Amino acid sequence: MERLHVATESKSYDIVFKASFNDLLEEILGLDKDFSKIAIISDQQVGKLYQDEIKHQIEPHFNEVFTYSFVPGEFQKHLGTVSEFYHFMIENKLDRKSLLIALGGGVTGDMVGFAAATFMRGISFVQIPTSLLAQVDSSIGGKTAVDFNGYKNLVGAFYQPELVYINTATLKTLSKKEFISGMGEVIKHGIIADPNYLKFIQENHQAIVALDHEILSKMIRESCAIKCSVVSKDERENGIREILNFGHTAGHAIEKLKNFELLHGECVGIGMVIALTISHNLGTISKEEYEFCIKIIVAYDMPVTISGLCAEEIYQEMFSDKKTSHNQITYVLVNPLGHAIVKKQLDKELIMAAIEAVIVEE
Amino acid sequence: MERLHVATESKSYDIVFKASFNDLLEEILGLDKDFSKIAIISDQQVGKLYQDEIKHQIEPHFNEVFTYSFVPGEFQKHLGTVSEFYHFMIENKLDRKSLLIALGGGVTGDMVGFAAATFMRGISFVQIPTSLLAQVDSSIGGKTAVDFNGYKNLVGAFYQPELVYINTATLKTLSKKEFISGMGEVIKHGIIADPNYLKFIQENHQAIVALDHEILSKMIRESCAIKCSVVSKDERENGIREILNFGHTAGHAIEKLKNFELLHGECVGIGMVIALTISHNLGTISKEEYEFCIKIIVAYDMPVTISGLCAEEIYQEMFSDKKTSHNQITYVLVNPLGHAIVKKQLDKELIMAAIEAVIVEE
Repeated sequence: MERLHVATESKSYDIVFKASFNDLLEEILGLDKDFSKIAIISDQQVGKLYQDEIKHQIEPHFNEVFTYSFVPGEFQKHLGTVSEFYHFMIENKLDRKSLLIALGGGVTGDMVGFAAATFMRGISFVQIPTSLLAQVDSSIGGKTAVDFNGYKNLVGAFYQPELVYINTATLKTLSKKEFISGMGEVIKHGIIADPNYLKFIQENHQAIVALDHEILSKMIRESCAIKCSVVSKDERENGIREILNFGHTAGHAIEKLKNFELLHGECVGIGMVIALTISHNLGTISKEEYEFCIKIIVAYDMPVTISGLCAEEIYQEMFSDKKTSHNQITYVLVNPLGHAIVKKQLDKELIMAAIEAVIVEE
Repeated sequence: MERLHVATESKSYDIVFKASFNDLLEEILGLDKDFSKIAIISDQQVGKLYQDEIKHQIEPHFNEVFTYSFVPGEFQKHLGTVSEFYHFMIENKLDRKSLLIALGGGVTGDMVGFAAATFMRGISFVQIPTSLLAQVDSSIGGKTAVDFNGYKNLVGAFYQPELVYINTATLKTLSKKEFISGMGEVIKHGIIADPNYLKFIQENHQAIVALDHEILSKMIRESCAIKCSVVSKDERENGIREILNFGHTAGHAIEKLKNFELLHGECVGIGMVIALTISHNLGTISKEEYEFCIKIIVAYDMPVTISGLCAEEIYQEMFSDKKTSHNQITYVLVNPLGHAIVKKQLDKELIMAAIEAVIVEE
C-alpha cells in the first residue's frame, strides 16, 4: 500500500507513503494543476534540513519556487505568524493559482493550511508532514487552525490539501520526546478503532522505538487508514469524527492549564487515561482491557499522571473547549475496546473521580 | 417573490425580502437548528439603529442574545477588528452551535462572515444587510474577507450564510452617497446579464432615487436573482463567477491607489467605464450601447472620471489584484450588452487607452 485515497465531501486527494522526496515532483505534476508559483513554508529547524532538497527537486519544472522559515515552537501558532506568511506571499506575488507546501510538524501544517485556506479566499496546498504526530494525525483530515489568546485551535478552517506526501525517512531526525508524543495518537487509533492494531503496537514496541523503517511505515499507514476512514464519513465534525477527540477533552484542558509546556501527545496520554477510567467505571470496558491500554501508554513512556493542577480547574477548563456546546461537555468513551462512543451528558462526579485518579502531588 | 433560494455546492439557503424585522425570529426558527447562543455584530452607527429592535425580536425564544458594536468604517476591515470579535465571542462563551448575525453594510457582512467562517473552524451565521450595496451584492454568494496591508479582501474564505434577511425599510436611513454607491453593482448586473433590467433602472430613475419602496424592492430582488444565478453555478469563482468582477479590476486598483477615500461603488463606476470603453474599442458593443450605459452611470451621479492618478500606476496596480494569476490580468468585458465574457490576454495598449480616457486633470 503506497497510497491511500481520501474522499471527503469537499475534496478528494491522496496520501502517499515514501522513503524519500524523490517522487515529490511527479506527485505534484500528477495533480494536473497549472500552478503559477510554489512557496515552501517551514519552521527554521525543519527548513534547514529539507527546504533546499525539496526546492532542488521541484525547481526543474517550476521556475518560481520560494521558501520561508519561521521561528519554531508551539508558541508561534498564532495569527501574527500567519500574517508573516501573508506578507511573504504578497512580496513574492503569489496568486490564486499558486501552491503552498506545508513542510514540518503539526504546528506548521495547521498554520500553513490556515494560510492556504484564507489567502485570497483559498489557494492549493500540499502537506509534507515530518513529525510522527503530523504523519499519523494532524496532516490528514483538513483541520487547519491557530491558537488565539491561549485557546488552542480557536481560529481555523476545514480545508483539505491537494496531497499529503509522507516521507517516513524524516522520522530519523525526530527527538525521542517528539516521537513518543506522536505515539499518543497512534495508541488512540488502536483504542477507538482496532484492538488488533493495539496488539501490533504492543508487540512491536522494540522495533517501533528503534525506528525500524518497515514496522514504522506499516504503523503510519495503518493509523492514516483509521483516521481517513473516520474523516471521509464526517469532514466537518458533525458526528462520527468526534470520536477522534478521544483523550483530547481533558488533554486540551491540561495542555492549556500547563501553558503548553507539556507536549500535545503527553497531554492526550493523560486525557486517554481519564477517558479509559470513566469507561471502566461505567463498565463499558473490562479491568483487563483497561490495564492492557494503560500498559501500552506506559510502555511508550507517556505520562499517566499529572501534578500541579487540581481536578476542579481541569473540569472547568473543559467547558471552554471547542467541543463544548450548550454548556455541555462532549466526552468520547470506549464501548467496547476498539469502538468509541460519544456521550453528551455525564455526571460531574464520574468525570471528577477519573480526573482525581490521575492527579499526584508535586 | 418574497424569497429566493440559493443552492451552492457547499450549502443551500434562502434570501428573504421583507419590509420589517417582524419575521426574523420565525425565519431563524425555520432554519431548524438548535442554536445555543446568538450574537449580533454591527458597527456603532447601525448598531444604534437596529440592535435593540432585533434583540427584542429574538429574545423571547433565545435567552442568550449578545450584541457587539465596532467603530464604523472601511478602515476597520482588518484582522484586528475580527480579533475583537473573537475576544467578544470567547467572553460570552459562544460555542460551535452558536449563531452570529452580521447586521450592517458590506464591511460588517464581510468581517462577521469571516469571523463565522473561522471561529472554531466555522459556526453558523445570518446576513442582515442594511445598505444597498450589501443587499444587492456583498451579502449574497458567501464571499467573506478582510483587507490586509492595503490589499482589499486579501484574507478571507468562501463561507455561506444560513439565511440572508433583507429588510428594505433599512434603506430609508442610508445617506444618498452610500445609496448611489450601491447602484454601481445594480447597474453592473444589468450590463452583464440583462439589458431589460438596465432599461428598468433607467426608466425608474426618479422612483429609485426617491427610495420608492415598491420599485426599490423590485430592483433589489432582481439584482439578487442575477447574482444568485451566477454564484449557484460557480461558488468558488473558478469560472463564470468571474463575470461579477466586471468593473472591479480597475475599480479595486483605483480604490487602493486612492487609499479607500472613494466609495467602493464609485470606483466600480469608473472601472465599468474603462471596461465598457475596452469593449467598445474591440467592437463588442456598439456606440449606442456604450452611450446608453454611460448615461445611466451618470444619471445615478456616479463619477466617470478620475484625477490625481496616472494610467501606468493603475495598470500596474491591477497586477496585485486577487484576480491576477500567472502574472496575467483577467478582464471582464461585454459582448454583447447583457452578456459578459472573461478575457485573459489583452494588449496593454488597449487597456492603457481606456484608462487614459477616464483620467482628467485635478
